[in-house]
Amino acid sequence: MNSAAIAVFDSGLGGLSVVRHLRQLLPHENIVYFGDTARVPYGIKSRPTVAQFALETASFLLGYEPKLVVAACNTASALALDTLEAELPVPVIGVVAPGAAAAVRAARGRAIVVLGTEATISSGAYQAAVAALDPDQPVVAQPCPLFVPLVEEGRECDDPIVKLAVESYLGALRGRDIGVAVLGCTHYPLLRDAIAACLGPGVEVVDSGRETSLAVRSHLEAAGALSGSAAPGILRCFVSDNPARFQRVGSRFLGERIEHVEHVEAERYVNLARRATPTA
Amino acid sequence: MNSAAIAVFDSGLGGLSVVRHLRQLLPHENIVYFGDTARVPYGIKSRPTVAQFALETASFLLGYEPKLVVAACNTASALALDTLEAELPVPVIGVVAPGAAAAVRAARGRAIVVLGTEATISSGAYQAAVAALDPDQPVVAQPCPLFVPLVEEGRECDDPIVKLAVESYLGALRGRDIGVAVLGCTHYPLLRDAIAACLGPGVEVVDSGRETSLAVRSHLEAAGALSGSAAPGILRCFVSDNPARFQRVGSRFLGERIEHVEHVEAERYVNLARRATPTA
Repeated sequence: MNSAAIAVFDSGLGGLSVVRHLRQLLPHENIVYFGDTARVPYGIKSRPTVAQFALETASFLLGYEPKLVVAACNTASALALDTLEAELPVPVIGVVAPGAAAAVRAARGRAIVVLGTEATISSGAYQAAVAALDPDQPVVAQPCPLFVPLVEEGRECDDPIVKLAVESYLGALRGRDIGVAVLGCTHYPLLRDAIAACLGPGVEVVDSGRETSLAVRSHLEAAGALSGSAAPGILRCFVSDNPARFQRVGSRFLGERIEHVEHVEAERYVNLARRATPTA
Repeated sequence: MNSAAIAVFDSGLGGLSVVRHLRQLLPHENIVYFGDTARVPYGIKSRPTVAQFALETASFLLGYEPKLVVAACNTASALALDTLEAELPVPVIGVVAPGAAAAVRAARGRAIVVLGTEATISSGAYQAAVAALDPDQPVVAQPCPLFVPLVEEGRECDDPIVKLAVESYLGALRGRDIGVAVLGCTHYPLLRDAIAACLGPGVEVVDSGRETSLAVRSHLEAAGALSGSAAPGILRCFVSDNPARFQRVGSRFLGERIEHVEHVEAERYVNLARRATPTA
């Protein structure tokens, strides 16, 4: 048993949709969360910049001596997991591999469509993770750049602009033999019903965030590192900018009120001396 | 006469729509541009963070010994002009005051509607700039958070999602006595036709970027600081991330091909020792 916290970082508040599943599955675990809201989003930025920002954001959480780091950001997981694994002294779990594995299990010979940000899709990380499990599995990759701003603005699945955007990205896929759609961005679960309605009842929707929380539980069980506490786990949140906006918008992702958010000054996480050296 | 360059900074590539007008009005001026694409956008961030980022970005351009700095970012102009004026050793022209002045001149007793990002609108900067010129002038402020991602994705005025988003933000204004709409974000000129079509022919559309370039020309004329060169001015662009994306997407804002873009490492502009101290 291990009473240390689980560290979760994200480019902003989307990672709270992963925290929501973690808190449901592992209600006795303490969680420290850092959202890099000063530099959000990562999804339109380059690999070296995302790797540098992700490493800085994760490194801040090392100060809370976590037993595990979760990269709850698809872009950071897609572009920087190798950097994080090489540089951090604790195990790192990203959201891409668990999402890809669940998609391959569910596809049963039909195609997988991966939905994500511009950077996640063009990185090819999901495509590579699927190919590593099944080289013959067909994959269609679809960037959906409007989904994040639509969710951040508070638009819901029945909003006409949401429906039109979903149709614009996914409508052409209806004629193809799609078995699974992967929500490859932590904002997309909030548009799940609109995505599922567009693709039709024959398509299974996989939430990488939920699959990641299952992977975290498996990892901690295997390592004998689950919390032994009987008390409810505490969630402590940090942001690099705008705690009031994080609290207001983030509660929709977390599914509960966010009690405490602390602002972190740049001096505490921007570490210019130590540069990430991404491998590609 | 003064052969020094005009420095222009923005949170990303939107400021190129201001540069477009500068190059048309002042074809012999050299321009150095810095887009903070590593930390874009500013429009959802807090005043202290925007002030810090804007000061760092503008300060990088001081190395090129400009005669003038243009804050070609509505959010930075709205939240940080006082900081920039206090800290920079050269004159600073923002986009808010010229846009507000043109709107007041054109309104003739009818209301002004200001369109901008979440941060620009909630700062109240346009509303205050209008009130300073005419305390009785009615102003309606309307945030349009989807416009920037729609433009960045390359969607045009005839795109159904663009039309629906414009209608969603502006449709309710048609019944009111609106005389002028101010494009209070450098991305919005690319949606000008859709905005004008929604509001109808009786509404004049003011582009703060164009008004700012007129203000720059007036300032340089009054100071006797226009370039004396007969050669075409040179545009030199710097970005903090992703020069390829800047070149590809930015050309639509500039209206011409972007020839040279240089990537600037964080060490050259992130200055942790000197913190901005915004006044509000």
